[in-house]
Amino acid sequence: MRVILPAGTTETALIEGISAAGAAPALMAHTPSADVEILEYGRPTQSPVTPVSPSGCPTPAAITRAVREVVGFDVSVVDAGLSEPTAAPTVDVGATPGRDIRDPVAVPDASSIYDRAREFGASLPDEALLIGETVPGGTTTALALLTALDEPADVSSSLPANPLEQKRVVVEDALDESGLEAGACVGDPLEAIRAVGDPVQPTVAGIAAGALEAGIEVTLAGGTQMVAVAAALRHAGLEAPLSIATTSFVADERDGGLQAACDRLDCDLVVTDPGFDARDHVAMNRYCAGEAKEGVAMGGALSLVPDGEMATVRDQFETIYARLGMGDGESVDGGLPDRSPADDAGDPDAPATEGGRGS
Amino acid sequence: MRVILPAGTTETALIEGISAAGAAPALMAHTPSADVEILEYGRPTQSPVTPVSPSGCPTPAAITRAVREVVGFDVSVVDAGLSEPTAAPTVDVGATPGRDIRDPVAVPDASSIYDRAREFGASLPDEALLIGETVPGGTTTALALLTALDEPADVSSSLPANPLEQKRVVVEDALDESGLEAGACVGDPLEAIRAVGDPVQPTVAGIAAGALEAGIEVTLAGGTQMVAVAAALRHAGLEAPLSIATTSFVADERDGGLQAACDRLDCDLVVTDPGFDARDHVAMNRYCAGEAKEGVAMGGALSLVPDGEMATVRDQFETIYARLGMGDGESVDGGLPDRSPADDAGDPDAPATEGGRGS
Repeated sequence: MRVILPAGTTETALIEGISAAGAAPALMAHTPSADVEILEYGRPTQSPVTPVSPSGCPTPAAITRAVREVVGFDVSVVDAGLSEPTAAPTVDVGATPGRDIRDPVAVPDASSIYDRAREFGASLPDEALLIGETVPGGTTTALALLTALDEPADVSSSLPANPLEQKRVVVEDALDESGLEAGACVGDPLEAIRAVGDPVQPTVAGIAAGALEAGIEVTLAGGTQMVAVAAALRHAGLEAPLSIATTSFVADERDGGLQAACDRLDCDLVVTDPGFDARDHVAMNRYCAGEAKEGVAMGGALSLVPDGEMATVRDQFETIYARLGMGDGESVDGGLPDRSPADDAGDPDAPATEGGRGS
Repeated sequence: MRVILPAGTTETALIEGISAAGAAPALMAHTPSADVEILEYGRPTQSPVTPVSPSGCPTPAAITRAVREVVGFDVSVVDAGLSEPTAAPTVDVGATPGRDIRDPVAVPDASSIYDRAREFGASLPDEALLIGETVPGGTTTALALLTALDEPADVSSSLPANPLEQKRVVVEDALDESGLEAGACVGDPLEAIRAVGDPVQPTVAGIAAGALEAGIEVTLAGGTQMVAVAAALRHAGLEAPLSIATTSFVADERDGGLQAACDRLDCDLVVTDPGFDARDHVAMNRYCAGEAKEGVAMGGALSLVPDGEMATVRDQFETIYARLGMGDGESVDGGLPDRSPADDAGDPDAPATEGGRGS
């Protein structure tokens, strides 16, 4: 099994209140670069940060890596518009960082990125692929893409309290600035992405389309962002079978809405619960409290874990958490974080408290 | 274990008679791009050729991949000056294709490539690395580097009849054009590489230097090209333990000379024989006849094969040979190639007869 990980950025993540509150914008740009180093090497190697939420919830990359260390799968990272260097090897599809979706054009090269990604996908020798993503701000651009395609627009968030209303205002502005109305791009997903999307979307969609045309089985590994990509593929006329694999954290938040979205798009839905509620580990507690939820192919990777091996994945996640310099994971007060966000922000010795996923 | 594979090009490979006779220059430029696709995916995916010598001897990448499919090791490809696109993920160290060493400056950015490669090497989390190379023309640039450093200059070749005299003439011209005499760069290896080297050399040397400084064990996987890199490292003042791992094909050709070179440079030498003489397979026969010999970390990869597993590697090499569309490997006439080079060149249906390693 190969996991493809398109990693990119969009200036949309810098919009206040959408991005993880308190995270320095300059550091957030490192998040996808650091995520792919964690996936490739087991920890950030040249990136200056370990991505965590403001309250210290570690990036889903740590969990995807834990699965990789237990199950063993190939990884191919695709540069889908990184804005900071990474020491992970990346495939080039000509993508550059995405602009703020409130600019008239968000992804000028959406079509050429899609074409190159499609060629890459079609060339792969694998029988099955999982395609994930890491892009701060990605749920906002997903909302914009769904809106432009006139699909039910309802997205998840890496924050426990989803700032959905604010995202809707941003999307409204974005469509206005592009001279589009909601639903204006039905049947033309690349135009929608060009106007109000991000560069990871045409990369994932192109790889998926190419691979499906080559007879490769494709699973989109993610939550609502992958619903948006699946919608783009269906609007492009692609009828091949398609699956979405995500975490129970996304599925639970969406309360049946995710299944409905998948039904509408004729996608199979696979939901995996990593069983984090079985442990009193501070990071697992935070996931159970609704932080992070998904990203960096986490749900797809979890779907590869054989029956009976999930406890080993949790053990490995604890090991990686410690390796990332985040402590021993012991929580106090019945599962609450052992340090408050305020403590984190003010502690100059805190090894990994900056950055954030931003969506 | 991680295998790092810097892959690059130098226009030096285009000098007539040094490169594999008959190989079209435009195709040879694809060799390293295709090699890393074979290592990553098991066959060329987007590259238009499977690299073979004019007589049909397949690239060592096929053997390194066979070892990977049996033993399983991580691979990180580094773009050390590729001139054609590759679908393999690559690490960026800012390298561009090398110029003809008879130009006044062959690698203008040798120092910055070295610095970035060193940073990359120092950042890696591994306990041990194997560092290989794929660069057509690389033994000629190795000869030039050794000559500029006043080290005994005696290199191997991917051709059965080593055009060593011709290489020496090229190196003499190269030094002349750079205003240097043999031995002019003693103690200044980056100046030697800048003048008469190739971009793979500062990449390998930089990664090795950074890794050694970080306490990572380093094995240079290759033959005389790695002797040249080891010489560069020693001339840079690096005193850490260093190993070279190569194939019996290189060691046998060099008749004790390789061990002497390693002794002089205080390097351990590991030689592995893949036992190709145990089979009557056309590709293995060609290796036994002195073609290709080494490259794409072949010798280093072979050194990872546990006792008793080499027959499995040979089986896997046969599988890959067939997968590459090169036939079933059956030879006729007691081990001679089943098609002559002339047949290959004239057969429009031949799936894999172009390119070549060129050094």
